[in-house]
Amino acid sequence: MAQKLRIGVVAPGTRIDQQLAERVKRFAADSFLDAAPEIVFHPQCFLSAGHFAGDDDARAAAFVAFANDPAFDAIWFARGGYGACRMAERALAQLNEHARGKTYLGYSDAGALMGGLYRLGFKHIAHGPMPVDMIRQGGEVAVKRALSWLIERAPESVELSLMFDGASAAFNIMVLQSIIGTPLEPDLRGHVLMLEDVGEYLYRIDRALFAITASANIRQVKGVKLGRLSDVPENDKPFGANEEELVRYWCARSGIPYLGRCDIGHDIENKVVPFGAPR
Amino acid sequence: MAQKLRIGVVAPGTRIDQQLAERVKRFAADSFLDAAPEIVFHPQCFLSAGHFAGDDDARAAAFVAFANDPAFDAIWFARGGYGACRMAERALAQLNEHARGKTYLGYSDAGALMGGLYRLGFKHIAHGPMPVDMIRQGGEVAVKRALSWLIERAPESVELSLMFDGASAAFNIMVLQSIIGTPLEPDLRGHVLMLEDVGEYLYRIDRALFAITASANIRQVKGVKLGRLSDVPENDKPFGANEEELVRYWCARSGIPYLGRCDIGHDIENKVVPFGAPR
Repeated sequence: MAQKLRIGVVAPGTRIDQQLAERVKRFAADSFLDAAPEIVFHPQCFLSAGHFAGDDDARAAAFVAFANDPAFDAIWFARGGYGACRMAERALAQLNEHARGKTYLGYSDAGALMGGLYRLGFKHIAHGPMPVDMIRQGGEVAVKRALSWLIERAPESVELSLMFDGASAAFNIMVLQSIIGTPLEPDLRGHVLMLEDVGEYLYRIDRALFAITASANIRQVKGVKLGRLSDVPENDKPFGANEEELVRYWCARSGIPYLGRCDIGHDIENKVVPFGAPR
Repeated sequence: MAQKLRIGVVAPGTRIDQQLAERVKRFAADSFLDAAPEIVFHPQCFLSAGHFAGDDDARAAAFVAFANDPAFDAIWFARGGYGACRMAERALAQLNEHARGKTYLGYSDAGALMGGLYRLGFKHIAHGPMPVDMIRQGGEVAVKRALSWLIERAPESVELSLMFDGASAAFNIMVLQSIIGTPLEPDLRGHVLMLEDVGEYLYRIDRALFAITASANIRQVKGVKLGRLSDVPENDKPFGANEEELVRYWCARSGIPYLGRCDIGHDIENKVVPFGAPR
């Protein structure tokens, strides 16, 4: 029997409940049987310090401990929420060569940390489902997709267009806006950039796209693809353009090719997008 | 009798109702009698194109027409909302020397356009109340404060600490975040930077402050002062720090002096903050 994959889970933003961790471990064991990975949730995932899963030091320390530990093959981010940008710089400064060889999987707020990792040249980063997706209606399919990718790089886990697109990356729109111009901004020149968001008014999406598409780095992407914008609150009046028209507008204004839709979002259909060239 | 001040009103973001315009004109006439300014609302203020007071071309054209017209002494932005960032670049490219000599007053979303004007070296820009403030409970005091400043630079209209602080500027936090790294970002080195916001979760304020305080430009301000954050929605759990602690945290992390509170915000107490050295 092949050696089991060992996955370490940390929470750079918001905490999860211990019950969720147990549920994910049980689901992994039941779904993958002999191929099931060993999933270790760092106790930091369950800490609480106001909004965060422990204070900045605790979140950075847990991430560094698991990322630097040669016993883990992959780091899986427990959930988003908010907080990765606060701990990322101090954590990234402490990573070793074991960290550099690992796989990192997550999305949403975790994108701030993943952006920083990609900027440092880490080669195995992917945007995709997290343990917290288990609590969505039908969320098992998302968790299984993530695990299938971590265990065996299952092609059916991956966003379909990646096989044609070459180097890609995927981000939450608000998170990407927040890391541009900071030490967490990755070099995205030549990449297909996939974008998604949840719970944002269209005027806020529009404003964020103004800022994002003004970036010299972003203006050199190969093109932009739009994932899903879910749970968009109702404006006091109709915005006057739909989400795809917004993205087309800002792409046209900034000379960025708009390449159509892609299959990512804050939902159970969210596919895995490995950063960089497909592997 | 001195010549009447002539104020042109345009709406770079969201529209206002004609009734509000009439109410503001009547209030100005009743409040200032012989000293009352002539206030001209451009018809563009009342247009509607989805979220916006007319499409980008209409909003840019109205602003350019009034700013370039030597018959106006001041441009007063009708309200914020959202949309100034969409029309600002094309408008700024068309301004003439008459525009350069004028006064510009507004806040909130209008800050995107005001940032661009300040970047171009315009010398008479101020953050302060707008016609739309008339509809707040007790809003007449805010409108009167704005007009007193436009008419006679009334010292009691101005944020008190400006007499000690030297060069200052004031922005809505989300709007400032959105213009950093864009052609609308002003040079704020050496300025006291006053910040305010409305209707934002503390985690979003925190994320915006991460981005803002990462900017090399912002790291060279003289210091940051915090105005009011009003109507902060309840988080699902307490954030764990109050608004002033957030600002102190990001100032400390980025080596920016935190200089305490200031008297600006989305409310009737909002004082006028002329950009640059006090005049």
